[in-house]
Order: sequence, then structure tokens, then C-alpha cells
Amino acid sequence: MKINENYLKLQDSYLFSMIGSKVRAFEAENPGSDIIRLGIGDVTRPLPEAVIGAMLKAVEEMSAEKTFRGYPPEYGYDFLREKIRDNDYAARGIDIEIDEIFVSDGAKSDTGNIGDIFSAENTVAICDPVYPVYIDTNVMGGRAGELTKDGLWSDVTYLHCSPENNFLPELPKKAADLIYLCFPNNPTGMGITADGLKQWVDYANEHGSIILYDSAYEAYITEDLPHSIFEIEGAKNCAIEFRSFSKTAGFTGVRCAYTVVPRELEVGGVSLNKLWARRQATKFNGVSYITQRGAEAVYSQEGKAQVRATVNYYLNNAKIIEEGLRSSGFKTWGGVNSPYVWMKTPEGLSSWEFFDLLLKKAGVVGTPGAGFGPAGEGFFRLTAFNSAEKTQQAVERIKNSF
Amino acid sequence: MKINENYLKLQDSYLFSMIGSKVRAFEAENPGSDIIRLGIGDVTRPLPEAVIGAMLKAVEEMSAEKTFRGYPPEYGYDFLREKIRDNDYAARGIDIEIDEIFVSDGAKSDTGNIGDIFSAENTVAICDPVYPVYIDTNVMGGRAGELTKDGLWSDVTYLHCSPENNFLPELPKKAADLIYLCFPNNPTGMGITADGLKQWVDYANEHGSIILYDSAYEAYITEDLPHSIFEIEGAKNCAIEFRSFSKTAGFTGVRCAYTVVPRELEVGGVSLNKLWARRQATKFNGVSYITQRGAEAVYSQEGKAQVRATVNYYLNNAKIIEEGLRSSGFKTWGGVNSPYVWMKTPEGLSSWEFFDLLLKKAGVVGTPGAGFGPAGEGFFRLTAFNSAEKTQQAVERIKNSF
Repeated sequence: MKINENYLKLQDSYLFSMIGSKVRAFEAENPGSDIIRLGIGDVTRPLPEAVIGAMLKAVEEMSAEKTFRGYPPEYGYDFLREKIRDNDYAARGIDIEIDEIFVSDGAKSDTGNIGDIFSAENTVAICDPVYPVYIDTNVMGGRAGELTKDGLWSDVTYLHCSPENNFLPELPKKAADLIYLCFPNNPTGMGITADGLKQWVDYANEHGSIILYDSAYEAYITEDLPHSIFEIEGAKNCAIEFRSFSKTAGFTGVRCAYTVVPRELEVGGVSLNKLWARRQATKFNGVSYITQRGAEAVYSQEGKAQVRATVNYYLNNAKIIEEGLRSSGFKTWGGVNSPYVWMKTPEGLSSWEFFDLLLKKAGVVGTPGAGFGPAGEGFFRLTAFNSAEKTQQAVERIKNSF
Repeated sequence: MKINENYLKLQDSYLFSMIGSKVRAFEAENPGSDIIRLGIGDVTRPLPEAVIGAMLKAVEEMSAEKTFRGYPPEYGYDFLREKIRDNDYAARGIDIEIDEIFVSDGAKSDTGNIGDIFSAENTVAICDPVYPVYIDTNVMGGRAGELTKDGLWSDVTYLHCSPENNFLPELPKKAADLIYLCFPNNPTGMGITADGLKQWVDYANEHGSIILYDSAYEAYITEDLPHSIFEIEGAKNCAIEFRSFSKTAGFTGVRCAYTVVPRELEVGGVSLNKLWARRQATKFNGVSYITQRGAEAVYSQEGKAQVRATVNYYLNNAKIIEEGLRSSGFKTWGGVNSPYVWMKTPEGLSSWEFFDLLLKKAGVVGTPGAGFGPAGEGFFRLTAFNSAEKTQQAVERIKNSF
């Protein structure tokens, strides 16, 4: 009897628990202090009315024998897959069929579980800084090697992001089998152009790599950037796309997402669409009927307008942060096509030193960039998910404190 | 670039698709025929009123900023974990704490994903016949070896169940690291006594095995049988328990379950509770707030009574099937502590031959036992999830046809 020993290599993640304990300690020492939280990556606005109405109706249906629904289809109800196909793909000129769309309970589940269908021998390329799930799930899957002294994993090809490349990674020098990309990016907030993304698609097709493309923040794009990797020619032969209703429609507490695996996508003649279908049919049992009716309503005329209003609200907060800090001499990235603003810490402070000072001097909580990987050291993430009023106050306080 | 080649070993599961196509063909040839379906393992009664009320309220909460909820806790809300602890454990004299309870979207997900935390080198013992997910997920995980001509996997230790052992497996002759047990059983409907289960717990503790105990059907127990493996002394040192709201409270379309991993459970000094916590925190993002409020309501006084009424309704159907068939000379198992009745096919018919004849002569659909493994050949599963009226009719038709 042995455990999966790769789990023993994982580092405990202290990021958000350390933030929590530091904030609690500060509050204990400074009772009545008015702390503004721009740290979390979680939405705060209520669900769109169209979604609420659809879910109330769906709950009522579950109360009567004639309209009760049992096990949902493992890959999602067609009523939702059709809406996704029509609105997120066909409307952008992308030909994706419903059997290429797999509805799930979250992009975290899907980006975590996708490793199941790939060999443990594959090499991976991952950005630094990055959303930690990509790294941790590959450690669990035995693809990361050993943790080195500099905080990097020996077998991972890191795609270093820094002010020098404007936080847009360059193609790896060493070919990787699986390439994780996320645009607009968490944590840096940077988007990628079609030309930029085309380079990655061409590279993947040339090297036989698969791109795992996380576009959970596509609804925040305001400039002329691709919303889907499948807008890029050749992507269906080399990419899997992860989408979520979490940041788009405020579904973080409702749990619904989807993953697109094109029929064309093959490795050695084996269809990845069929492998993922088999994985989901065997280890997953579909998403709540009520949730899927809620997600469907996101695509109604009313729902679209309400979702757009909420996203615009957050985008306006991002603009307040980004413009406010930049005009005061801070160096910033993101915030234009993303709810995240990424900033250089002032005066050469480390991420955590700045965290402490910001809390003490401004009463503002953010996220230390070092929590997203070694290349995040010296940077800091602020999020747009507080109220407009609090966001404005926080920016004023930061300006006055540094 | 390589796929997980274990996936190529999987057999396509034609069971339910073949049932579907046979029924459709029959309906096309016999328009207007009144087919009664006792094949599916899915509930049909509406959700308890208490659950509906709680979910309606939770949806409303999501519509207002003050009561909106974002990301749920990864292991479940305490309000639900406390109810589970109090009602499913403490009330039976079992001391389980809330940090040993992991709320999830389904027992299928959990029994499928639990393999993540164990080495691919572990050996597994699995009943035959069995719920196919246990086998398939171990094929995917590389623990099953190769499929042999007799339909068994070379590296799996099979726990053969037959009329000779009353479909209660004997302890394996060859020690296995992971032992999958499900009581009351799907598909045979058989329950296990405390003495019977004690043998397994003692065996596991002696051999350093872990028992993966699926008690998704515990609500159907009517006799003096253990509802939880943790009623057995020593089980906390060797067992993980999977529970679900699907068959208990009609949640197949709502998706909520939980897994109990005791703090005492260790392999080589490593806590399995911590490993599962890490797995879930990394590859899962919690269950919908609305769903968890619905599950909480299952434990209200009103909810308990409503759930009991629905379970009793299904149990009465099971009794109609079991007693009806037995009194007509059929050999049956299960149906007393389970919604499933397992029967020997008459006249030496194979499972599929009986399926065809039953459809043709009686217009009744069931599930061929061979679909649950080689030892299911010559047996047949009927389920209690249709209406009482239809169930009664089906039994009369079967009696008159054979």
C-alpha cells in the first residue's frame, strides 16, 4: 500500500491563509480600522436577474413529478450547449459543434483534471507568475520533477514573464508537450493579440504540442483581442479551451464552466475529444439542472445586458485602479482587458513588504505577486471586485501613502 | 506527446446505449406499445418540499448584494457539514468531526477521483458483479493490467459474488491494497451485517489495506444492518466512506454527495485526510451554495419526514417486485434493504436473451446482469424507481409471461 508520493512534494499554500492572518492581526491591533479588500479574485455583485428567474423556475420544476429531472447528461444539457455554440462561437465565426463542448462544475476542476488523459511522461510549459493550479496539478501528476532552491520545478519549462517582455511570454526554447496559457491573464491582467496567439498555435502545430488555453476572463476584453483561441487558424488541431461562468456572470458560488475539445484534436491518431468524453462519463456525473438553466439565461437578451452591466462595473473599477496608480507614478499592467491590475512595488520593496506597508499605511489589502511564482516577486495584484466607492477610496489612500 | 495509454484499454460501455437502441427498435416495430421501464437507477419522485423551499430561498439570496455568496468553501459549508456530522454520524454513536467530511458534487466523482491520492502500483480488489466505475477508473489509473478473454482484468483481485455465497463476497485470498465495497449493493441489492463487515475491517487492518466503502444506498436499509462502516470498531484506521444525497433525497439532478476520510487514517505515517483535502482544494472548487442549502434542508424535521416517505415509496415498489417474483418461483436477491432486485434469469437464459424476451413478451425493460461484469451473466436487475402502479403492472406481466 502506497500513496501517490508526488503529493508529498507539494508545498503547502500559505498565500491566502497568510493574508488572512495578517489582516486579522492588524484588525486586532487597530480596532475599528476601515480595511478595503482588493485582494480576492471573487466576484461580489449579485447574480443577473435573468439568471435568478431561470433558477427559481428550475427549482419549481424539480418539485413536480412531471417536470422533475434526474441525472443530467454527463456532458451538459443540449439547451445549454447550443447556446454556448451559438453565442460564444458561431457569433464570432467559429464553427464548434455541441459534442465538442463539455459542461462542468468549474474551470478549476477541468484544468486540474485534464491531466488525466495525458501521459505522466509529457513535458509541460507554464508561465511564471501563474495561477498555481497548473503547477500543483502537474506536481500531483508526476510531471514537475523536483522543487529546486529557486522555487522552480526541475522538469517544468517556465515561460518567464516580466516587464522586459511586457508580461507576454516568449516561445519556449525547449519544446514542451503541454503548454498552459491564460489570456487575459491571471494574475497579470495582460491580454494577447491574435498575432501573438498565432505564434503559439503555429509553434504547437509544428512541435506536436497541445495548448491548454484558459480564457476564463474573456468577457473582460475591451480591445481588439481574440476571445477564443479557436479564432486562430490551426488552433483546432492543437488546443483545448477552458471557459467559465464564474467571472463572466458571477457564478463563483453557483459552479458552472465548460471545456471545448475539438474533434480534429488528435495525438497519435487518438481523438482527445473521445478521451475527455470518456473521462467525464466515468468520473463526473454532470451539472445541476438548476445551475444549467441559470447558465442558459446568461445568453438571453436580458441576461446578456445584465452580465455586460456587471462586467462593465468591474472594468470601471479596474480603470480607476489602473489610471489612478499610473497617474501617480506607479508602474502598472493589466486592468484594461481584465479585472486584475498588476503593479510594480514601489521603492524596491518585496511583495510581502509592500503588503505589510500597504495594510499599515493605507488599510488596503492586495495579493503579493510572489504568491504566483518566483517571477511575481516585487509585484502586487489588485482586483476590481470591490464596490466602485471603496475602490476609489482605496486608490486615494494608496496615492497618499506612497 | 503521449496520451494516458491506459485509456486505450477501456472497453466502450454499450450497456445503456444498447438497452436504449433495443427499446427504440421494439417501439418502432410495435407502435403504441406500453413499455414499463424498471431498468434505470435514477429516481423519479420530485424533490422534498423542504429542499425546494430552501433552494428557492438560497436563489433569492444570490440576487441581493448583501446575501450574495461567491466561492463556496472547498470542503463544503460548515452549516451542511455540521448537519451531516450530527445526523448521519453522532446520532448513530459515531464520532466524526466536520474536518473529516468533504462535500462534493457526487459519489461518482469521489469514488472516481479517490485513486488520485494512491500509487498506481497498488493492487485492487473489486466485486464481480459491480458498479462499473470502480473498474474503469482503475483501468485509467493503470492498476487493472490487461483485459483477459474471460472479461476480467489481469491485475484486479475479483471478489466473486454468486448464489453460493448469497452475493456476499469472501475475503480475498491474495491481499489487496485497495478494497472496494458497496453495501447495500448495486447491482445485487444485498446488505451486509455488522459481523460480516467486521471481518473486512479486521482483514484490512491486518493487511494494511484501505476499504473504499460506498454506502450511497444506506437510506434503504430496513433491517438491523450498519448504515456506516464507521459503526464498526477499527474502521477509522482503514476506511474511507462515500455517501450521496442522490438516492436518499432525490438529488441525482441536483448533485451533492460527501466523503468521510477519518483523521486516524494513515499510510506510512501520511494522513489520507490531508491528501484528500489537498486533492480537493487543488482540483475542485466546492458545491453550489444553492445545492448545499437544499442538502441542509434534508436534515430538517420536515425534510427528514419527506425523505423517509419517498424512500418508503421506493421500498414498497421493491417489495412488490421481490415478493411478486419470488412467489411465482423466480429466485431473487435484494429488494429489502435496497431499491434494487436482483434475479436469476429463468430457463437458463443469458442476461441479454432474457432482456429481449422480457421486452417482447411483457413490455418490461430491465438491466442485464452481464453489464455489471462476467459474474452477472445469467442474472438481471430490476429497479424500484417507477410508480407503484406501473411497478405492480410490470410484475403481473412478468408473472404471466414466464
